[in-house]
Amino acid sequence: MYKNKIPKASVYRLAIYLRGLEKLKINKKIYVSSPEVGKFCGIDPAQVRKDLSYFGQFGEVGKGYHIKSLVTNLKKILKLHHKKWKMSLAGVGNLGAALLSYKGFENVGFIIQVAFDKDCKKIGRVFSGVKIYDFKKMKEIIRKENIRIGIIAVPAEFAQEVAEIMISSGVKSILNFAPVILNLPSKIIVSNVDLSNELLSLPYFISK
Amino acid sequence: MYKNKIPKASVYRLAIYLRGLEKLKINKKIYVSSPEVGKFCGIDPAQVRKDLSYFGQFGEVGKGYHIKSLVTNLKKILKLHHKKWKMSLAGVGNLGAALLSYKGFENVGFIIQVAFDKDCKKIGRVFSGVKIYDFKKMKEIIRKENIRIGIIAVPAEFAQEVAEIMISSGVKSILNFAPVILNLPSKIIVSNVDLSNELLSLPYFISK
Repeated sequence: MYKNKIPKASVYRLAIYLRGLEKLKINKKIYVSSPEVGKFCGIDPAQVRKDLSYFGQFGEVGKGYHIKSLVTNLKKILKLHHKKWKMSLAGVGNLGAALLSYKGFENVGFIIQVAFDKDCKKIGRVFSGVKIYDFKKMKEIIRKENIRIGIIAVPAEFAQEVAEIMISSGVKSILNFAPVILNLPSKIIVSNVDLSNELLSLPYFISK
Repeated sequence: MYKNKIPKASVYRLAIYLRGLEKLKINKKIYVSSPEVGKFCGIDPAQVRKDLSYFGQFGEVGKGYHIKSLVTNLKKILKLHHKKWKMSLAGVGNLGAALLSYKGFENVGFIIQVAFDKDCKKIGRVFSGVKIYDFKKMKEIIRKENIRIGIIAVPAEFAQEVAEIMISSGVKSILNFAPVILNLPSKIIVSNVDLSNELLSLPYFISK
């Protein structure tokens, strides 16, 4: 079946297509072609067809992709269709607090269930509806809540240690905001969020 | 010359290649092939070659790309080689404060020069070395400082208004953290940072 040899980058792009299609759906379009998806998402149409072909035949000859069906299928493939995914946040500094109040996670099926900090002024308080616990209780609480996704928003020097505790508690994938490369077992999926990536292409357009 | 008909997405990918090559450089590699760049960056090798071909011939037959030269060339193409790009930040809430203390911008040649908020408890104070001004002075100060890049970290309902003021002050491109689509002239380049995008592909890997 399709579980073997699918490049990680194809899976990441499925998420990009999903976001793009959801925007197209708002415009009341029914069908869309791979060049249209490609243009909308900034990805080569041949790449779009190749990525989708790993998971099945979604296009209809002469019509293209039925947007609503493709959205449903992509959500199923990405395991986004049936439940809210619980997340655990480590670090409630400025960035952590911003993430707690960020509405975008819940819109796509994710929720920060618990948060951890070492600052005793924060421990026991509730930020944006989420209770802050002592770092020392991380292992126990993540296990009890059966949480599989961790968000790291601690300073760079603590990120590795925190990631290891998360993994030993059952976390399978990590969204890492700390500007450091984590050294973790290859079965753990790490998404590094680098806020400066988006900036790098702007001067090109300014200078034109 | 190469200024016409280059897809925006190719320019964005140049930035991805640049980040990838800088990481490879640390490993003391001298040459790299397009399949290696592609694998490292999660992009099809044919796409890598096509993107680079818009800007010149960078590969050497039988050797691949000379990493150091390619980095220098990419920085020149992206206008990242000669100066720090000054930025203006609107909104010093949790996210804005996190961005002010974020070290990643300066590492790649960008600096937040001024910040704006409407909270009189923040106006006049200095956060992470950056002075906070009253929103009302935004137009005057952005013009005086000749700033071309704006960062929007205000709540969604104020983002459009703030973006318009920035543009009327001379800002040419915007990094938008507000979860809203800005309606701006097409000549203005907007990068929308959606913190939830990275999350969408994680459940697929967890469930495998």
